[in-house]
Amino acid sequence: MTTEHERSRRGVLRGAAAVTLGTGFAAGATAGTAAAVGGTARADEPVSGASARERSGRRLDVAVLLYDGFTALDAVGPYETLCRVPGVRVTMVARRAGPVRTDTGELSVTAERSLREMPRADVLLVPGGGERGTTTTMADAGTLDWIRRVHRRSTWTTSVCTGALILGAAGLLRGLPATTHWASGPYLGEFGATYTPGRFVEAGKIITAAGVSAGVDMALHLAARLSDEKVAQATQLALEYDPDPPYDTGSPEKADAELRALALRLIADAAV
Amino acid sequence: MTTEHERSRRGVLRGAAAVTLGTGFAAGATAGTAAAVGGTARADEPVSGASARERSGRRLDVAVLLYDGFTALDAVGPYETLCRVPGVRVTMVARRAGPVRTDTGELSVTAERSLREMPRADVLLVPGGGERGTTTTMADAGTLDWIRRVHRRSTWTTSVCTGALILGAAGLLRGLPATTHWASGPYLGEFGATYTPGRFVEAGKIITAAGVSAGVDMALHLAARLSDEKVAQATQLALEYDPDPPYDTGSPEKADAELRALALRLIADAAV
Repeated sequence: MTTEHERSRRGVLRGAAAVTLGTGFAAGATAGTAAAVGGTARADEPVSGASARERSGRRLDVAVLLYDGFTALDAVGPYETLCRVPGVRVTMVARRAGPVRTDTGELSVTAERSLREMPRADVLLVPGGGERGTTTTMADAGTLDWIRRVHRRSTWTTSVCTGALILGAAGLLRGLPATTHWASGPYLGEFGATYTPGRFVEAGKIITAAGVSAGVDMALHLAARLSDEKVAQATQLALEYDPDPPYDTGSPEKADAELRALALRLIADAAV
Repeated sequence: MTTEHERSRRGVLRGAAAVTLGTGFAAGATAGTAAAVGGTARADEPVSGASARERSGRRLDVAVLLYDGFTALDAVGPYETLCRVPGVRVTMVARRAGPVRTDTGELSVTAERSLREMPRADVLLVPGGGERGTTTTMADAGTLDWIRRVHRRSTWTTSVCTGALILGAAGLLRGLPATTHWASGPYLGEFGATYTPGRFVEAGKIITAAGVSAGVDMALHLAARLSDEKVAQATQLALEYDPDPPYDTGSPEKADAELRALALRLIADAAV
């Protein structure tokens, strides 16, 4: 009964998809299998979406550094954006493999591998965290050494939010324009970087993103660099990332001093 | 040395924040502690941001249902948005407490409590998942019973992406307008719901959000309902949610049939 129920669901979900997709897709979709969907897309569009493995003969590894007190969305937004790019594997790593607590203490994400088990990656992504998590990691020689080692051979070294301060503490931002969470921007100067507000800033192979949610915008840009623009655009569609927040208070320029102070208090009060 | 390093960081991070915040905030910020930041905000703004516990005398519980094959961002986007709302606690729950695998198999998020340990919540949020995870959960009588029981006493029952199909399978969407991932929209009719495209759709106490990233927009709306608009706006600022994706292909109307087919293939190929 359950199995039959599931089977019908599988068919119908694909069928439902087909309804919205119109001409050229129905044939593949009514077959009701992912394979058929893939086959149809492949037929329509032979080059774009060919996996990086198909093109380069190997997988691209993205390592996302987790640490006690990191901010979940800083890591999961880019993970969700990059994990469907053909040929890309996203791996959560931390000093020790296993569950890693976020800044609020309410959530844990599992690090699949330890830093030692992942000595290199094509893409390094350092998420931001609460003040305790960020400052502790900025002072953690072992983690900073690992970041420098991975950076030496990476294709892209990236950060989200206060992850830029960690890249800075590792000495990677000297003389570069960079961004971070709006509340920490001026602090980048202490690492010889120039705070450059923006959703993300690319300087050589280093890309830094602004606060928390900006990691998704950066990751779409990165998806195009790792694959091609069609794949990045299809990824945005897969995530239905057509943002329409109910307010327009997402940057400090769009908020008054009172709202900025309240935002900082919400951040501070939720932190453990 | 490390401790001193950390202490200086703590001060400087707050100090840096103050620079961007200008008048009325400097006094609190230069004190260099979260408490001072909070104190300043409280002085400026006595009502907004007062925690729900301060106002209602109790905590508001948000339960996010995790299941094997859920989509990480569907759950983590709303978690990140709601976890800083004063008086709100977000708890990840699943049939069994412990790590729960996402649809790509590359990531695990920990369920802090089992369904049995969380028999009620003020807000229920059901994320979407890959086809296997969604259809299996739609056929899981125990989980559907738990959803119906929690819904009976919830203030809000919500979903992201194909989580709406799970609410539908639980019989909660009959006669209601609702939304889900664009590729599954037409399928809502099977549950007596009317597919209503939009970032999120509120129908009585049920709010359904569109695909994946739409959960953040819905959660900002929910933050205002659980607290007030100032807190929701400050939360958007805390997340620096001022979206600016490099492309404009986030909805099916903005993509051609080829891009829609590629998006479905990326979703299908990444699923385990």
